[in-house]
Amino acid sequence: MKIGIVWATGAVGQELIPLLKCRKFPVTDLRLFGSRNSEGKTLETPYGERVVQILSENAMRGLDAMFFSASSEVSAEWCPRATNQGIICIDKSSYFRMNPGIPLVVPEVNSESIGDNLLIANPNCTTSIAAVVLWPLQSAFGLRRVIMSTYQAASGAGRPAMEELEHATQARLNGDDFTHQEFSYNLAFNLIPHIDSFTDNGYTKEEMKVTHELQKILGTPDLPIECTAVRVPILRAHSESITIETEKLFVAENVREILKNAPGVEVVDDPSHNLYPMPSHVEWKNNVQVGRIRQSLTFGDHGGTLFVSGDQLLKWAALNAVQILEYILKQRLAK
Amino acid sequence: MKIGIVWATGAVGQELIPLLKCRKFPVTDLRLFGSRNSEGKTLETPYGERVVQILSENAMRGLDAMFFSASSEVSAEWCPRATNQGIICIDKSSYFRMNPGIPLVVPEVNSESIGDNLLIANPNCTTSIAAVVLWPLQSAFGLRRVIMSTYQAASGAGRPAMEELEHATQARLNGDDFTHQEFSYNLAFNLIPHIDSFTDNGYTKEEMKVTHELQKILGTPDLPIECTAVRVPILRAHSESITIETEKLFVAENVREILKNAPGVEVVDDPSHNLYPMPSHVEWKNNVQVGRIRQSLTFGDHGGTLFVSGDQLLKWAALNAVQILEYILKQRLAK
Repeated sequence: MKIGIVWATGAVGQELIPLLKCRKFPVTDLRLFGSRNSEGKTLETPYGERVVQILSENAMRGLDAMFFSASSEVSAEWCPRATNQGIICIDKSSYFRMNPGIPLVVPEVNSESIGDNLLIANPNCTTSIAAVVLWPLQSAFGLRRVIMSTYQAASGAGRPAMEELEHATQARLNGDDFTHQEFSYNLAFNLIPHIDSFTDNGYTKEEMKVTHELQKILGTPDLPIECTAVRVPILRAHSESITIETEKLFVAENVREILKNAPGVEVVDDPSHNLYPMPSHVEWKNNVQVGRIRQSLTFGDHGGTLFVSGDQLLKWAALNAVQILEYILKQRLAK
Repeated sequence: MKIGIVWATGAVGQELIPLLKCRKFPVTDLRLFGSRNSEGKTLETPYGERVVQILSENAMRGLDAMFFSASSEVSAEWCPRATNQGIICIDKSSYFRMNPGIPLVVPEVNSESIGDNLLIANPNCTTSIAAVVLWPLQSAFGLRRVIMSTYQAASGAGRPAMEELEHATQARLNGDDFTHQEFSYNLAFNLIPHIDSFTDNGYTKEEMKVTHELQKILGTPDLPIECTAVRVPILRAHSESITIETEKLFVAENVREILKNAPGVEVVDDPSHNLYPMPSHVEWKNNVQVGRIRQSLTFGDHGGTLFVSGDQLLKWAALNAVQILEYILKQRLAK
């Protein structure tokens, strides 16, 4: 397949390219696109050296599929131009996610919604980490309420943000001043309960994305879901503390069994051996880890509380998109 | 007043002594107690040099009040011996907290429960940070459910834990190996959803302390409260994401007004100017900060979600205890 990557130089792009190789995706041509700043740069890839090009209808001609991981503005302009050429677009921006005509896909949950669509939206990483765990619970128990607090790594804000966290932390340890740029405040040994901008209801856009995207992916548009999104001084992996109210009885042992059989999920839940999900154990892993599974003390036997961690950069920013394309390829080959 | 401090060399002891001076507490004698390891050590204090003594009935004779911030075993053995001598004991261990005959006090909430008791228990720091915010909401709206996820600093595990976090972080930045001792895992750029040991219901002791201690302090023994307690790579201050269901209508604007008038609370809630509670802004501050106040999306207009941060080492490990003693002193002077 002839693949284009927009932008190739960002944190997500840099995870995507080796991931395609690692998963033995049949890449016959790889074109890298970048902003004017990156134009002409040569990048080493597992497919050999590639020169970063500026996006144009000519430059994308002949491609089979493109990954968009740039701004919403770039996706808004260029995804339709690409689909007009018959190119499959896997869009990581938020621009098309809530468009009712565009499938929003977590492959483990709702790949059947892809159908014949050329443009497929990829959810926010916080959403997709929760979705693989909530979907089997929705199927088995029926969800009535979802309350989530997040512990989000610097990687969610991109590669410069990860580097800033390291530099800011070193400065703090040295007692040096540090001027932050990537976050609203210095994140070193700190946390920031503010990701993306605030909306009128007091929630941030990040928090409302979790609500609306989960409702769309789970196919439960009226399910009450709320999120408090917090940036923590961690590099790669996101974690989430989730309490659910359920229609059917929540029995922790059953939940563990159901989640053990769920795709994309690894149950790590043995407190007697200090086993539970943690960022340091989930880095570079494909599956989301879930543990601390226990009956809720506020919803009684019709609810539960759990803790999940996922490598948002590998799995949720890059792998989810590749899995979508793998699914499409498999469907086409089956025809 | 003649004051004794057990142990004087720990993280809490080291906050307590300067705090007594800072608050101009009338200290006429200060005796420092320590374990056999610290016996004979000379400590600089704002009241001059003091030699650390071993606890004995003789060594405590004549004291008016003692602060216990050692193990439960030390409190279990020595608090009764002290009260037998008529010495007021402010106990920071968990040993007496749930004893129905012993008041468990957050001064801003339930100082009237102290009465003539000589032994007063001081709650867990995670509990007390939540209590000053939840008490005015319980009074104004009536609480029906409380769901909390915490972001707890290394300081909650003591001074060596804070130092370990700094050393572990430096090692990680240098790419060096590091052997952790203070936590179950290396906390550098990581989080650990495990504080204190696990109980049979899948919650940790720390989480069940929050449930039971809040029920006792708020005077609501049947209120459903649940907590997920998570250690984060932060040095001094704890934070908590709290969702409540209320009996009366929750209107964010009213809640802000009520909390502005609540003792021990500072409302920091202006998203348009990026103002919300954060560990880095609450360090060394007496008051708990509360912000991100908004109506719940899961309990509708009968619930809300908020975020709190408090310097657990200053306010919640040391100041709470001093405030209790100040209250007793005031009551005695008024007689």
